[in-house]
Amino acid sequence: MSSGDLTYRAAGVDLDAAERAKRAIGPMLDATRDANTLSELGAFGGLYALPPGVDAPVLVASADGVGTKLKVAFAAGLHDTVGQDLVNHCVNDVLVQGARPLFFLDYLATGKIEDGVVPEIVSGVARACRENGCALLGGETAEMPDFYARGEYDLAGFVVGMAERDRLIDGTRVEPGDRLLALPASGLHTNGFTLARRVVFERMGLQPDDPFPGEGATVADVLLRVHRSYLSAVAPLLDGGRVKAMAHVTGGGIEGNLPRALPAGTGARIDCRSWPIPNVFQVLAEGGGVKKREMFRVFNMGVGMILVASPDDANDLLAVLGEGAWALGQVTSTPGVELEAL
Amino acid sequence: MSSGDLTYRAAGVDLDAAERAKRAIGPMLDATRDANTLSELGAFGGLYALPPGVDAPVLVASADGVGTKLKVAFAAGLHDTVGQDLVNHCVNDVLVQGARPLFFLDYLATGKIEDGVVPEIVSGVARACRENGCALLGGETAEMPDFYARGEYDLAGFVVGMAERDRLIDGTRVEPGDRLLALPASGLHTNGFTLARRVVFERMGLQPDDPFPGEGATVADVLLRVHRSYLSAVAPLLDGGRVKAMAHVTGGGIEGNLPRALPAGTGARIDCRSWPIPNVFQVLAEGGGVKKREMFRVFNMGVGMILVASPDDANDLLAVLGEGAWALGQVTSTPGVELEAL
Repeated sequence: MSSGDLTYRAAGVDLDAAERAKRAIGPMLDATRDANTLSELGAFGGLYALPPGVDAPVLVASADGVGTKLKVAFAAGLHDTVGQDLVNHCVNDVLVQGARPLFFLDYLATGKIEDGVVPEIVSGVARACRENGCALLGGETAEMPDFYARGEYDLAGFVVGMAERDRLIDGTRVEPGDRLLALPASGLHTNGFTLARRVVFERMGLQPDDPFPGEGATVADVLLRVHRSYLSAVAPLLDGGRVKAMAHVTGGGIEGNLPRALPAGTGARIDCRSWPIPNVFQVLAEGGGVKKREMFRVFNMGVGMILVASPDDANDLLAVLGEGAWALGQVTSTPGVELEAL
Repeated sequence: MSSGDLTYRAAGVDLDAAERAKRAIGPMLDATRDANTLSELGAFGGLYALPPGVDAPVLVASADGVGTKLKVAFAAGLHDTVGQDLVNHCVNDVLVQGARPLFFLDYLATGKIEDGVVPEIVSGVARACRENGCALLGGETAEMPDFYARGEYDLAGFVVGMAERDRLIDGTRVEPGDRLLALPASGLHTNGFTLARRVVFERMGLQPDDPFPGEGATVADVLLRVHRSYLSAVAPLLDGGRVKAMAHVTGGGIEGNLPRALPAGTGARIDCRSWPIPNVFQVLAEGGGVKKREMFRVFNMGVGMILVASPDDANDLLAVLGEGAWALGQVTSTPGVELEAL
């Protein structure tokens, strides 16, 4: 590198590799197109016609990343699920305000574009887009030498959803006595991995292929379980006006997220006997000596989504949500989250 | 780390620092609100009411990053301009299809959230949002230990714009003989920095505070010149139907981007005598022994935006675009880009 003519490729950026990656992911994007997708891959901006029949459309947008769950994917050499985590996380974040997703864009940055890995990552993004009925409208794949360690990458995404203005779920009708209904998480989802990795790989000395204690699955399989999308479970309730508020339990746990969905002057009481803490969280708590209260501040503890409804509607909604759903607690007039019987 | 109870903070994630950062950037987001911004900071998804008065709205979305221009910002300790680069880049990418920006979201990932740096970065994002008349609707700030080197971060963003369906600029009416009109770049914009950094910092041995050859400015100032937004220059032309196509000259240079805007079976002839190559590109070419053809494949070479119009409209449009604009060349019936008199 110290003499002779310089080229972009010699400096570390291979535009041909970027072009090959683009060609490999083209069919994946195509498979997510719907009637409103107007643009082809390669357009400067992705074009999406606003679906007709909405009186006062409100766009609901969210950005998120996968966090250091990616480190587990690197260690396991499994790159086709983190895109699902990303999309499902973003979809849930607009769902809680009453919106169905329209389209998604991803941002993938890596030190060196490897021919196999980029399509593997995007395949997960595209699969989850199809499952959530949203178009993968575009994205950016950036080759950034000196930025990411060999074999590593960061992955972020952006979703745009839509709702009728008078169907937005905004928590304004929530009042003390309302019931909290919970839907189970599929695992850690995409939060708390910096702590989980310390516990599992450092404290417990486990490897990705080792069996995870108390589960018939490897460490990698348990930690990489895909962040669940709640769209299909919650969609039947979106237009009925009976869901007063919703909270997606992500970074910060129940205490960090439920208050975001509640109006000022209200709080929540969670009955910690209402569900069994999943094994993965018990193993993490014991393996790292992590106190129970700290566990609840970092992890979802098995509670992936919380809905708020009036006492009169609660049983009906639980029936629609299906057998995994349960009564988690209720809204109180005391700000903050009380963890009863922790 | 090897014994005692583990906490999230001990593992490297400080939720309090994240909360302080969120509070610091709140007023910046507020300053970008408009009448359509319905949500407050902290909502799971940002809410944006679709502006009324559009018959057949098409959303135009784009995702991008700042690339390794960030490395120059790290070296110089200047964090308040990269957000402008990001927003302006994204705005230009939807502008070329005829859309004005509605809102923007950012993704900021860092190894450790430093109290001063995050607000400095977001201040640039917010300033550019205000300048482009778009709302900073939300975003994600992720603390990812073991991922980014101390003092480093990645920054990506996502814009959503809107256009009337029959006002979309899609290149379909372009024909051989049409004129290419250029608007000047402000500098390197956000592309080619992996090569530029090798040349300037390794080959030429310069430091960020050294004077840049041939300019009354430091190396950092020249390299960090803000990616120009072309919105104010081009907006007066968006509704007239006289701009047939537009290309934002980013990664891949003129040859990599102009063909994206042209219909199949057409190409372009660029008159390389029509503008003086800015000093910064001459210095990079000489300092790195980078061949002229390679320079054109990596950098914008001073051409930031290209518009396509019929010969009858070209002079009128040049007058509207202002004195920086010039006639760059014309559309041909030969696919590819011919660099005449290179």
